[in-house]
Amino acid sequence: MDYKVPLKDMKFVMNDVLEMPEHYSKFTKGQAAEPELVEAILGEAAKFCENELAPLNKVGDEVGCKFEDGEVTTPPGFKEAYDQFVANGWPGLCGPAEYGGQDMPQSIGLIMMEMMISTNHSWSMYPGLSLGAVKTIASHAPQELQARYMPPMVEGKWTGTMCLTEPHCGSDLGLLKSYAEDDASLTEDGAYRISGSKIFISSGEHDMAENIVHIVLARLPGAPEGIGGISLFIVPKFNVNEDGSLGERNGVSCGSIEEKMGIHGNSTCVINFDQAKGYLISAPHKGMSAMFTFINESRLGVAMHGQAHSEVSFQKSLAYAKDREQFKGSKRKNPDRPADPIIVHADVRRMLLTQKAFAEGGRMLNMYCGKMVDIETSADFSDEERHWADAMLAILTPIAKGFCSETSLEATNYGIQVLGGHGFIKEWGMEQEVRDARISQLYEGTTGIQGLDLLGRKILKTRMEAIKPLWEMFDEFIAENRWNSHAKRFKAYYKSWKSLTRSIGMKMMRKDFDELNAAAVEYLMFSGYVTLAYFWAKAAIVAEDLIEKGEGDKDFLEAKIDMAYFYYHRIMPRTEALAASIQNGARSLMEMDEDHFVFLDA
Amino acid sequence: MDYKVPLKDMKFVMNDVLEMPEHYSKFTKGQAAEPELVEAILGEAAKFCENELAPLNKVGDEVGCKFEDGEVTTPPGFKEAYDQFVANGWPGLCGPAEYGGQDMPQSIGLIMMEMMISTNHSWSMYPGLSLGAVKTIASHAPQELQARYMPPMVEGKWTGTMCLTEPHCGSDLGLLKSYAEDDASLTEDGAYRISGSKIFISSGEHDMAENIVHIVLARLPGAPEGIGGISLFIVPKFNVNEDGSLGERNGVSCGSIEEKMGIHGNSTCVINFDQAKGYLISAPHKGMSAMFTFINESRLGVAMHGQAHSEVSFQKSLAYAKDREQFKGSKRKNPDRPADPIIVHADVRRMLLTQKAFAEGGRMLNMYCGKMVDIETSADFSDEERHWADAMLAILTPIAKGFCSETSLEATNYGIQVLGGHGFIKEWGMEQEVRDARISQLYEGTTGIQGLDLLGRKILKTRMEAIKPLWEMFDEFIAENRWNSHAKRFKAYYKSWKSLTRSIGMKMMRKDFDELNAAAVEYLMFSGYVTLAYFWAKAAIVAEDLIEKGEGDKDFLEAKIDMAYFYYHRIMPRTEALAASIQNGARSLMEMDEDHFVFLDA
Repeated sequence: MDYKVPLKDMKFVMNDVLEMPEHYSKFTKGQAAEPELVEAILGEAAKFCENELAPLNKVGDEVGCKFEDGEVTTPPGFKEAYDQFVANGWPGLCGPAEYGGQDMPQSIGLIMMEMMISTNHSWSMYPGLSLGAVKTIASHAPQELQARYMPPMVEGKWTGTMCLTEPHCGSDLGLLKSYAEDDASLTEDGAYRISGSKIFISSGEHDMAENIVHIVLARLPGAPEGIGGISLFIVPKFNVNEDGSLGERNGVSCGSIEEKMGIHGNSTCVINFDQAKGYLISAPHKGMSAMFTFINESRLGVAMHGQAHSEVSFQKSLAYAKDREQFKGSKRKNPDRPADPIIVHADVRRMLLTQKAFAEGGRMLNMYCGKMVDIETSADFSDEERHWADAMLAILTPIAKGFCSETSLEATNYGIQVLGGHGFIKEWGMEQEVRDARISQLYEGTTGIQGLDLLGRKILKTRMEAIKPLWEMFDEFIAENRWNSHAKRFKAYYKSWKSLTRSIGMKMMRKDFDELNAAAVEYLMFSGYVTLAYFWAKAAIVAEDLIEKGEGDKDFLEAKIDMAYFYYHRIMPRTEALAASIQNGARSLMEMDEDHFVFLDA
Repeated sequence: MDYKVPLKDMKFVMNDVLEMPEHYSKFTKGQAAEPELVEAILGEAAKFCENELAPLNKVGDEVGCKFEDGEVTTPPGFKEAYDQFVANGWPGLCGPAEYGGQDMPQSIGLIMMEMMISTNHSWSMYPGLSLGAVKTIASHAPQELQARYMPPMVEGKWTGTMCLTEPHCGSDLGLLKSYAEDDASLTEDGAYRISGSKIFISSGEHDMAENIVHIVLARLPGAPEGIGGISLFIVPKFNVNEDGSLGERNGVSCGSIEEKMGIHGNSTCVINFDQAKGYLISAPHKGMSAMFTFINESRLGVAMHGQAHSEVSFQKSLAYAKDREQFKGSKRKNPDRPADPIIVHADVRRMLLTQKAFAEGGRMLNMYCGKMVDIETSADFSDEERHWADAMLAILTPIAKGFCSETSLEATNYGIQVLGGHGFIKEWGMEQEVRDARISQLYEGTTGIQGLDLLGRKILKTRMEAIKPLWEMFDEFIAENRWNSHAKRFKAYYKSWKSLTRSIGMKMMRKDFDELNAAAVEYLMFSGYVTLAYFWAKAAIVAEDLIEKGEGDKDFLEAKIDMAYFYYHRIMPRTEALAASIQNGARSLMEMDEDHFVFLDA
C-alpha cells in the first residue's frame, strides 16, 4: 500500500490539459523549461520524495517534534532529508537566478510540492514556508535586504516563516497587538525593535537550518487601529551581519510547541518577540497588502495539501480494495474463490471514484493556478496578461483552498471507510491521512474565511467584475465545444452558478451582511464543484481528441472520459442541495437568541 | 468548556415528545418507573457520569490501554470508576430481577448510556458490551447456563464481549473459520472445544472484572459453508464451576491490542481461542440469527455513540463561540469592544445549529428506538404490539446507526471548525471527539452495510412490507396535523422518500444488485434526513401545543420551533442532491475497468 507519484497523470494535466509546454516556451529568463528537462526534473523529484520523504512520514507522526529549553528537535531523519534536499539544489529550483536560483517557472515547483506533501506533509512545510517567505522578500523588501537574506534562503541554508496569528486574533487580524519601537540609536542599520507573541507559527523553530527568517506583522509607533495600521517586517532568529555572516541571537524565542491532531512532524510554535531587531519591508501601515503575497502563495499551497491527501488516500484505499475479498460481485471476478475483491462492489467504487475525482480534478485546478502564478510573476508576459492572471488567481485561490481542503476531509475519510475497521487502525496509515489533512480546512484562513473572501471581498464588492475572467474562459470553452456532451452538461451547471451568484447579488443590494455570511461556505462549495466540472469536462474532451488522433494511452484516456461521466452524474447533483439551502437565506440561522442555543439547567 | 448532561432536553424528549411516562405506566414487572423515580435516576446517572467518567476522558485518550504478557491495563482511574459503577448498582438497572437486576425499562438504560458515551466513550464500552452479552444470553441460552452466567454479569462483576470478526472476514461473516470440536469426553458438561482467532474484540481483555464472557461465532463439526453454518457459543475467560465459582483459566488469550485513531481507552483485542471450552447457545447453524440480538442492540448503541459525540461537540463549540471575539456582527453585541463573540456570525451559527439538529434530533430518534426496545422485550405488551415494535426496530436500527454515525462525522468536525486553529490542538479536546466518533461509522457494520441492510434486506426483500409500520406512523402524524406548517413541510419530503423508494423498487425488478449497492448509502442518508424531519416536526408541534397551554419553559420551547424551521430550510435541501444522485444510477460507477482506476507507471 505504498503511494507512488502519479507522474502519468501529472504529465497529462500539464502537457495535454493545460498545454504547459507551449506556455513554458514563452519564458526567456533562466534555463528554458524544455519538455525533456521538465520531465527529467519531475522524475528526479518523484524519486527524492518516494525514497527520502515517504519513509519518514510514519515516524514523523509517531515521534513528532520535541521541545526542550527553547529548542525544537524534528523527528528522526527529517534533518538528514533536508540536508539532502539542499545538497540536490531543490530549494532554488524556481528561485531567482541573481540570488542563486534556477529560475524555473513557479508551476514546476508546485507540482513538486504536491509530491512532497503526498509523501510527507509535515516535512514539506519546512521548505514550503520558506518559498513563501522568499517570494514575499523578493516582492517587497528593499534591494539591500534582498541581497542579505535571499541567497541563503534560496540555497535552503536558512528557512522562513509567516507570523500573523496572536492568541486573541486569528481570522480578525485587525485586532493584532505586536508592535515595533523605533529605537533612534539603531536607525543607522534601519532596525526597529519588535515585541509581541505569535502563535501557530508553522516551522517556527527547528534544527534543520542555520537561521530562520520570520516575516512578521506588527504595528509601527502611532499606527492607526485595525487592519490599516499593520506593517510587515523581517525578523531573523540570528542577526545577520552586513557581510551576510550570522551575528548574535536576536530577541526571538520559541515559547512552546503545540500538541496537535496531526502533522506532528511539523513544529507549530509560540514565537515570542522581545525587542527583536526587525526590518520594515512594507510601506508603513500597508503590511497586510504586502503579506497577501505570502498568504495567497500559502493558500494555494494549502489547496495542494488537501488535493495531495485526496490522492494518497485514493491510491492506498484502491490498493486495499483490489486485494481485500468480501462478498461476491454481481459479475464474479474470482469464480473459484469464496469472495471477490471489494472493488467489484458499487458502493466501494462510489467512494474510490469520489476520491479520484477530487484528487485528479484538484490537480487540474491547482496546476492551472500554478500556470497563472507563472504568468503573474514573469516579465516575459505583457502587463495585460499579468493583470489577467492576477485577476484569475484572485478568484481561483479561495475556491482552490476552500474546495480542495474540504473535499480532502471527505476523500481521506473514504480512505478509512474503504478499509472498514482496518482503516481505524494506525498501522495502515489511513487515519494519519485524515488527521494530517484536517489542518487544511483551518490554516491560512478557515473555509468560512475563504467563502467570505470569494463571495464578499471578491465577487460582491467588485459588483461581479472579479469573476469575469473565469466566466469568460468558461464562455469560450462552451462556444468552442458547443456540440460536445461534456460541455453541454457543464453549461447547465455553469448557468446555475451564474444565476445563483446574481440572486445573491440582488439580496446584497440591501447590504445585509448576514445573508452574505449565511451563504458564503455553501456558495464556495458550489463554485468549487462547478470549477472542477469545467476541468473534468475539459479533460474528457482532450481525451476524446487524443483518442480520435490515435495518440496517447487509450485506456488511460478512456478512464478520464469515464471519470467526467461519473463526476457529472454522482457528484454534481450536490450543487442542487447547496443552491436550495443558500436560497433559503439567513433567517433560519439568525432567529435563535444566542442564550437559547442550549438549556443546561434542568 | 465542560460538557453537561442535557437533562432538560432529555426530559423534553422523554416526557413531551415520546410520552414515556404513559408508556412506563404500562409496565408491571419489577419496580414501577414512576416519573419521580425516573427523574431521580437520571439525576444520579448524570452526576456519576459528570463526576466520575468525564475527568477520565482525556487521560484515557492520552495514556490508552497497555498490553503486556497477555494482560491489558486500562487507563488510570478506569477500574476505580468501574468499581464505583458496580457498587452503585448501575449494571443491573435494566437487568432481570430474577438474576439480581432492577427490571427498569430498557430505555432508561439507554438514556444513561448516552450520558456515559458523552463523558467517556471508551469507558462506556466495557459495561456497554456486557449489556448486549446479557441480553443475548437471556434471549438464547438454556436456563442452566443463564443461572450460571447471568447473576455476576447483571451485578457487573463479570463483563461480556461479542466475537465476530476474523482477520479475513469482517462484513462478510459467511467466510468465518473459527470452529467447535465436539470432545466426547466432555459431553457431560456440554462443552465444545472452540478454536480460532478473532480480531477487533472491544473490551476483549482488561483489568476491570473478574471474568470476561465471550459470545462467539464458530462452526460446529460438519457445518455447511457460508452464513448458514455458523453457531453461537458462550466462551468464558475463566471456566465457571457448577456452583458459580471461578475455575481454571480457559483456552482464551489476548494476542495483542490495536493502536487506533481514537477510543484509546478501550481495549481492541486479538482474542485467540485454543481448544477453549464453549457452550452452544443457539440452535446448531442458527448462530447468526441469535447473534442479531447482540448486533441489533449494539447497532443502536453505536447510533448513540454518534449522537452523543454530536452533543458534546455542540456544547463545547457553543461555549467557545460565545466566548471568542472576532469581527463585528451586523448587529453589535459588544458595541464597546473591538469585536463580537463569533456566535453572532451566520456561518458560525450554521455550524452550531447543524450540530444541534443532529444531537437533539438523533436523541429523539434513538430514544424512540429505546421505547420500541421496551415494548419488544416486555411481557406487559401484547404479541401484536411486540411484533409491531420489532418491525419498527428492524427498519429504524440501520437508519439510526448509519445516520447518527455519519452525521457525527460532520458535527464533530464542525466542533473543530468553530474553534478554528484551536480546534486542531489537543488541549481543547475537540479533535478527540472527531477521533473517537470516527469508529461509529465502522463498527457493527459500516455505513455501506447499514445501507444494504435497510434498502436490500429490509425494504426490497420484503417488497416494502418492512417499511409499512414507519410509514403508517408518518401517515397518521400528517393526518393529525394537516393544518400545521411543520407537518406540511414534512409531508413534502416524506412523499419524495416514498417515490424514491418506489422508483428504486422498480429498478430492482430487474434484479440488478449493482443498482441496489449504488443507491444504498445515499438512500440510507435520505431516509435518515426524512426520519429526523419527522421528529423535528413533531417536537415543534409539541412545543407549540405546550406554549399554547401556557406550560413549560417558553424560551426552550421556542428554540425547538426555531430548530425545526432551521432543519427544514438548511438541512433538508440535501435530500434533493441525494435523490438526484441515486436516480442517476449505477452506470457511472460500474463502467470503469478496475485496472484503469489509476495508472502509476509513467
